[in-house]
This record gives sequence, structure tokens and C-alpha cells, in this order.
Amino acid sequence: MKLLVGKHAGRNSVFAVNDDAATNLSLLSSAVGSDLRSLLTNPELLASLSARIAGSDKVAIEDILPALPIERPGKTICLGLNYADHASEGGHDMPTYPALFMRGLESLMPSGAPMVRPKSSTKLDYEAELMVVIGKGGRHISPDDALDHVFGYTVFNDGSVRDFQRKTPQWTPGKNFDNTGAVGPYVVTADDLPTGASGLKIESRVGTEILQSANTSEMMWPVNKAIATISEFATLNPGDMIAMGTPPGVGYARTPPRFLKPGEVIEVEIEGIGICANPVIDEE
Amino acid sequence: MKLLVGKHAGRNSVFAVNDDAATNLSLLSSAVGSDLRSLLTNPELLASLSARIAGSDKVAIEDILPALPIERPGKTICLGLNYADHASEGGHDMPTYPALFMRGLESLMPSGAPMVRPKSSTKLDYEAELMVVIGKGGRHISPDDALDHVFGYTVFNDGSVRDFQRKTPQWTPGKNFDNTGAVGPYVVTADDLPTGASGLKIESRVGTEILQSANTSEMMWPVNKAIATISEFATLNPGDMIAMGTPPGVGYARTPPRFLKPGEVIEVEIEGIGICANPVIDEE
Repeated sequence: MKLLVGKHAGRNSVFAVNDDAATNLSLLSSAVGSDLRSLLTNPELLASLSARIAGSDKVAIEDILPALPIERPGKTICLGLNYADHASEGGHDMPTYPALFMRGLESLMPSGAPMVRPKSSTKLDYEAELMVVIGKGGRHISPDDALDHVFGYTVFNDGSVRDFQRKTPQWTPGKNFDNTGAVGPYVVTADDLPTGASGLKIESRVGTEILQSANTSEMMWPVNKAIATISEFATLNPGDMIAMGTPPGVGYARTPPRFLKPGEVIEVEIEGIGICANPVIDEE
Repeated sequence: MKLLVGKHAGRNSVFAVNDDAATNLSLLSSAVGSDLRSLLTNPELLASLSARIAGSDKVAIEDILPALPIERPGKTICLGLNYADHASEGGHDMPTYPALFMRGLESLMPSGAPMVRPKSSTKLDYEAELMVVIGKGGRHISPDDALDHVFGYTVFNDGSVRDFQRKTPQWTPGKNFDNTGAVGPYVVTADDLPTGASGLKIESRVGTEILQSANTSEMMWPVNKAIATISEFATLNPGDMIAMGTPPGVGYARTPPRFLKPGEVIEVEIEGIGICANPVIDEE
């Protein structure tokens, strides 16, 4: 199922999307709240709703203002250097363990919301990424079981302020500017995508300028291995999110470098999931 | 005021502590919830409660089981290498910007709870740290205004699994093992400590073995500069916590290295705030 969380008629609801029409699941059942949290560990609820979609009223997708799929995600853990060609373009050795960092809630915003270039830098960069939404939680999850813990997949733009990312070896500051990490708008449940969301074209672009174009099959740590690696140290809980790293073509590694500018709209598209599009603005 | 969040008579409450006696503030006012969140931005409430403590019933501190001061903190941002001598012992150059990383909620536990040495490593290390609890939120906070944004201070043991911290340049895995970061038990409001909690003795020890002994005045980024640096990129919200980095004497930098073992109790004490003590156990 393709799900969209967003505001319609004044409040946030969960919608099931077919083509350009959306069904308000929050109206179909009071068990569905204003974001995906109630559905993450309740496949029976999702199945019962699914059966009722065909006969239900529809609203136009363009009348829904996207919100974060989960209003207050627990942890957002991000992999870096997960595509070999991107590691190479940054001058990194081939890793034997994924580079992992975290993003705070304030750094995230939904598709459609402005991506903010901060006052203190002109080096705002894009990163097209697959994002995993955890359903069933767990610790010490084996690679064989890991995909059972995935609720679904969405699109992520891991917006990065490169000079702050490189202030020290810890990338945290450059990955945590307010309103730089774009999520969504659609979450596609795992059963509607290939195993591990592998084999999907992933692209970023500004207008007709294609900046990154790759395939999720090129990830060195596929989703099941990423979940196993993270859950070796931390319990994953429903609503935690994992950003799977970006392919080559990012702005800082281009000649000349190509950073995002106010007035541009940066789009990230993953085949079968959708397009996350955000206008770039300067911080006020 | 010295505050303690913990379980008494079956539920979590906020207590004001004087010597060994505690007053249950959650019973004095229904506006006080089960953790510090209701007090963070409400100095009037705290003042009105303060006036009623002398005439109120007391409970013994030892009958209170400490809990996290804030049940669901927003962000926990940690500084690394904030004491010059600790940077030196790790072979690091003197930094010009603080190393910053984040800890997820699952990595934290209160004083008194077990610190868990994971199955996958024997390199569990202690780090005595001052921890800031943010009261008033903000962005682009100047160093001159920063201390107005502090609600209070607590004790932190930034438990670190060293081999996982060094898997890649990103320290996140080694800093995010479940139940390795100990917080509390007391939060002392800023007005009851020296400006910026500077000039306080900070120590870690196991039994009579003193492992770290330093003074918070030795931090290269004092609290006001840390808040200014972080809020340049991220909005700080009430309940966010900042761990201020550790002085020299950590286990991995000793000759021979001295890691924590099951059966030991690791204590961190900061003058005027209290002792955070946690027994070390092996993961089941």
C-alpha cells in the first residue's frame, strides 16, 4: 500500500494513495491516528482498511499538504558511504563497516516544505537516499530476519551543510541544520516493493539537470545488513528510521562544486515510491 | 533547587531534595507531571512549589528509585574532546570546533540502573561528564544569552564501547549501545550552582580507585559557548540535553587499558550536584 501522511481539511491524517486519488484512513477507523504510528505494528488494521478503500470517498492528492510520516520518530540513524562510487568520489577508502550518524527531529521536514540554506554557509548539498521505516522493533536482529522488521520505505534527501560536516571528523553538525533533511511524501509498505527495496532506480535532480542517478541494488550494506549492524548495538523501535546513504553525484564532489541555491527545487525520486521535492530558500 | 525524578509508591514523581529528605512535588501540584518537563519553562511554578516545601511531608531518598529526569528527551548532543588533557591522551590535535555526536534514548538509563557490557565487546569505558538540561529553547543563541537557556545540570557517564566507536571515524555505534549512558540522579537548577556550572570538581571512580579527577573549569568549550555553537545549526528545545565531554583518565588511554568489568560499580561525582552510580553487568 502507498501511504501519505498530510494535512487535509485542517488536520493531519493518513491516506492510502492510488494514482492521484487518496482515501482518508483516519476517517475509516478511529484506530488510525494522525500519522503512521498506529499502523507500524498492526498489519491486521492495515489489511482491514485495505479491504474498504475501493468503496470509500476519495480526495485529490494535491489537496493534501504532506507532513512527516511519523510526527515524532524515535531515532533517525543514517548510513554514510554506502555506495562504492560515492565513497570513491569523496576520497574515502572502501569501508568495512558503515559510517553511522544520527539526525535530530528539528533537522527533518516533509516533502514540499522549504529546505533552508543557513545564514552561516553556502555549501548546502543534496543526497538522494532510500529511507527505511521500522515496524516491529528488536535487538540483535539477524540479516535473515531483518526484513520482517521493516514497515515500509520512503524517500530521503539527506541535505548536508558540507563545511560544517567537515569541521571535525564527526559529521553531526553538517547533518543537523534545521530543516535540511527532507522525508517523503509517500511510504510504500514493504510488500509492495522488491525484497529489501533493491533494484530501484534512485535519482536526484534540479529541473532537467540530473545530479545523481543510480540503483538501490548498488548499496554495499543492503537494508537487511544495515538493520543487523545497527541492532547489534541499539534496540530498534517502531517508527525509528534508517537512511541508507547516497550514490555518487553529490554537489561537493563535482567539478566545479555545485551547491543548492535559493529558488531551486531539489527533487529526489525512487522508482515505485515517489518524488520528494523541496524548494530551497535562504534562512530569514 | 536539587531535583530528583524517580519512582515512589508505584509511580514516577518529581522530588525536591534537601539532605536525605525529599518532598514529592507531583503531590503538591497537579501541574507537575511524572518528570521535569512541566518545570523546564515554568520558573513561576518551581518558585511557588519551593515556598511550600518546608511545611510538606518528606520521604527518604533511599525509598525513591531514580528514573531519567526527562522521560523522553528530545535531542541528546554530546561534545567530545572538551578537556585539553583528554584530547592529548587520545592522540588528537587540539580542536578548533567541538567534536559533536548524538545519543539515542535507548542508550540512556538512570543512575542506579545497570550499565550493560555488550556481548560483542569487552571494551566498555567510562566518561565522567557534566550534562546540561535545556530549559528555554532557541536558535542562534549568543554566548552572552546562553546561560538563560539552561534549566539545570546533572551528572552523566558517557559509557563508550571503544572498539565500536573506532569502527569508522563516526563514533555513533560505540556511543549508542543500549543502556550505556548513565544520567542523574539529581538535576540542580542553574541558580544553585556557579555560573555555567564552572569550577566544580568532577571525578569518576570504582570503589576507592580514582579514575578521573578534574574540574569543570578546564573545559575548552564552557557551557555558554557549547550552547551557542550547537544552536548555530539546530534549534534547542526544552528537555534537550548536552553532554559536555570528559576529562583525562579514561580506561582506553591508560597503561595498561582499564575497561569496566561486571561486578564493578562505576561512580561519577560532580561537586554540588551528586553521584551517578551504576553497577556493571554483562548483557544476558
